[in-house]
Amino acid sequence: MRVTATFAATRAEYRGRVALVPTMGFFHEGHLALMGAAREQAGTVVVSLFVNPMQFNDPADLAAYPRDRERDAALAEASGADVLFAPSPEEMYPLAPAVRVSLPDLSAEMEGAHRPGHLDGVALVVAKLYAGLRPDLAFFGRKDAQQLAVVTRLAADLSFPVEVVGYPTVRERDGLALSSRNVFLAPEDRAGVGSLSRGLFVAADAAEAGERSGAALEGLVAAELEAAGLPSPEYVALADASSATRIPCLDRPAFLAVAARVGTVRLIDNVFLDPEGPADRGVRLERDSLLYAKGVGC
Amino acid sequence: MRVTATFAATRAEYRGRVALVPTMGFFHEGHLALMGAAREQAGTVVVSLFVNPMQFNDPADLAAYPRDRERDAALAEASGADVLFAPSPEEMYPLAPAVRVSLPDLSAEMEGAHRPGHLDGVALVVAKLYAGLRPDLAFFGRKDAQQLAVVTRLAADLSFPVEVVGYPTVRERDGLALSSRNVFLAPEDRAGVGSLSRGLFVAADAAEAGERSGAALEGLVAAELEAAGLPSPEYVALADASSATRIPCLDRPAFLAVAARVGTVRLIDNVFLDPEGPADRGVRLERDSLLYAKGVGC
Repeated sequence: MRVTATFAATRAEYRGRVALVPTMGFFHEGHLALMGAAREQAGTVVVSLFVNPMQFNDPADLAAYPRDRERDAALAEASGADVLFAPSPEEMYPLAPAVRVSLPDLSAEMEGAHRPGHLDGVALVVAKLYAGLRPDLAFFGRKDAQQLAVVTRLAADLSFPVEVVGYPTVRERDGLALSSRNVFLAPEDRAGVGSLSRGLFVAADAAEAGERSGAALEGLVAAELEAAGLPSPEYVALADASSATRIPCLDRPAFLAVAARVGTVRLIDNVFLDPEGPADRGVRLERDSLLYAKGVGC
Repeated sequence: MRVTATFAATRAEYRGRVALVPTMGFFHEGHLALMGAAREQAGTVVVSLFVNPMQFNDPADLAAYPRDRERDAALAEASGADVLFAPSPEEMYPLAPAVRVSLPDLSAEMEGAHRPGHLDGVALVVAKLYAGLRPDLAFFGRKDAQQLAVVTRLAADLSFPVEVVGYPTVRERDGLALSSRNVFLAPEDRAGVGSLSRGLFVAADAAEAGERSGAALEGLVAAELEAAGLPSPEYVALADASSATRIPCLDRPAFLAVAARVGTVRLIDNVFLDPEGPADRGVRLERDSLLYAKGVGC
C-alpha cells in the first residue's frame, strides 16, 4: 500500500477501475467493511483520510476527534487498500475556498438542521474528492443516511461519472452503530445507548409487518429511548431515502433516523425501510470492536 | 469529427491529453481561436455546445439566442475539433439540480450584480463539464473576464486537475469584441458601439504610460462612451483579475471592464492590464467576421 499526500500522486497509482472510500480515519469495522466491498469491485482501492474542518460545526468536536495515522495505515493495508490518500490541510485547501457547494433541499432537516453547515462541508470536500481523485466507484456507510443522499445527488447533479454505493451499517454486539466517537462514551452511558438501535429494530419489525405511518414508526423509537432514560432525542424522523426530506407515510424507500446526545457524545443511527421489501438493519459484530483494542496496528 | 450527445460517449473518444472548449454555439472567430489554441496543446479537442438555460437571467435573451447546429459542426470540424459534445437538456439536467454551486465573493460585482444568478449558472454548468468530461485543459475567452475568474477559481477550489487557459479577445475590424449577440445590433447602433473598445484602448494606453488610478482609467472609458452617445453604461470597473473584485489602484494584474446596453443588445468588453507589463487588448480581424456571412457551413 502506498501513502500519498497529493491528488496527483494518488492518481498516478491507478490501475483499472478505481474505488474510493472517503474517511476521517480512526478506523473501525464499518470502515473496513467499506474497504472490503471496494476491493471486490475495483482494480485500485483508494482510502482517503482527512479530518475535514469544514464539516465540523463544533470546534470542540473537531479538536477532540480521534486520530491515529499509523494504526489507520496498518488497518487499511490489511483490508486491501492500495493507496491511503492522507492530504495535508494545505493540499486540500491551499486557499480558503471561495466556492460554495450545497444541496439545500436535502440539507434542511435532521443533520442539516441540528448541525448547521455540516452537510455543506461534506458536499464541498466530497466534491473535491470526486473531482481530484476521479473515482469510478465511491463507498459510503449507510449510517450517515442523509450524507449518503447528499453525496449521491451531488454526483448525479454535477455529472461525475462515479457510482455511489451505500453500505450497511456495522454495529457493536449490543446493536450500537459503530462510530469513531463511541470511544468517548462514558461507562455509565454505555448501556443506555443500546436503546437507539433497539428502537429502530422494533420499528423495522413493525414496518416489515405492514406499519406505514411515519408517526407510528417514529413513536416506536421514541418509546424505546424513553424507557432507557433518553427522553429527549434531537430528532426521530422517517425520511425519503433519496431526497432526505421527512415523509408522513412509508410509501417509498426511506430511512428512519434518530439522533441523540448522550453525555458529551452525539450519536446518530438509522434503519433503511422499503415498503416493497425487507429493512436494512445493518450487520452486527460478534466480538468487541477493534475500537476498544489496545495498540492495534502499532 | 464525432458529434456526441452524452458525457460517456464523449469520454470514449479520448486519446492523449484532452482540451475542452465550452461554448453556447453560433461560432465566431473568437470560438475558432480557442479551438485552434486547444488543438496545439492536446491529443483530443472537445468542443461542448450547450445553450445553458441556467445562466440566462433573462428569458427573452435565452429565447432569442442564435442557434445553428449544422453551421457550428462544420466550423468546429474545420478548426480541428475531434468531438462536438452537444448534449440535450435531459442529458445535462436529468433532474432539476438540487446542488447549488456559487462563488459569491467573485460574483458580487459587475456581471454578478447586473445579471443575478448568471455566474452561478455558469459555475454549475462548467463544474458539470469539468466533472463529466474530465478535461486536462479548458479554454475560455478573456472577453468574459469575470466568468474566467470564476471558472478558474472553481477548478482550483474543487481540486479539478484541469488547467484553465484564458485566451485573448478577438475583435471586429473596428474593435468591437466578437459576440454571437452582435448579429442583433441594429444598423443605426453599429457605429456607436466602437466606442467601448476605443475607450478601453485609450485607458490601456494610459495604463502602459503609468496611470495607476482606477478612477482615472474608468473615467477615460466613460468619456469615450459619452462622446459616442452612450452616456449610461451599466458599469465601468477596474477589477483584480483573479478575485474579480473592484480595486482602486492598478497595483496587480487586473481587467478594466465595461458593460452597456445598446438598443436591445447588452455588450460587454474589457482589456487586461498589468502594472508590470503590457496590456492585453485582444486581437483584431482584418475582414468581416463570419458572423455576417450568409450560409457558412451549410
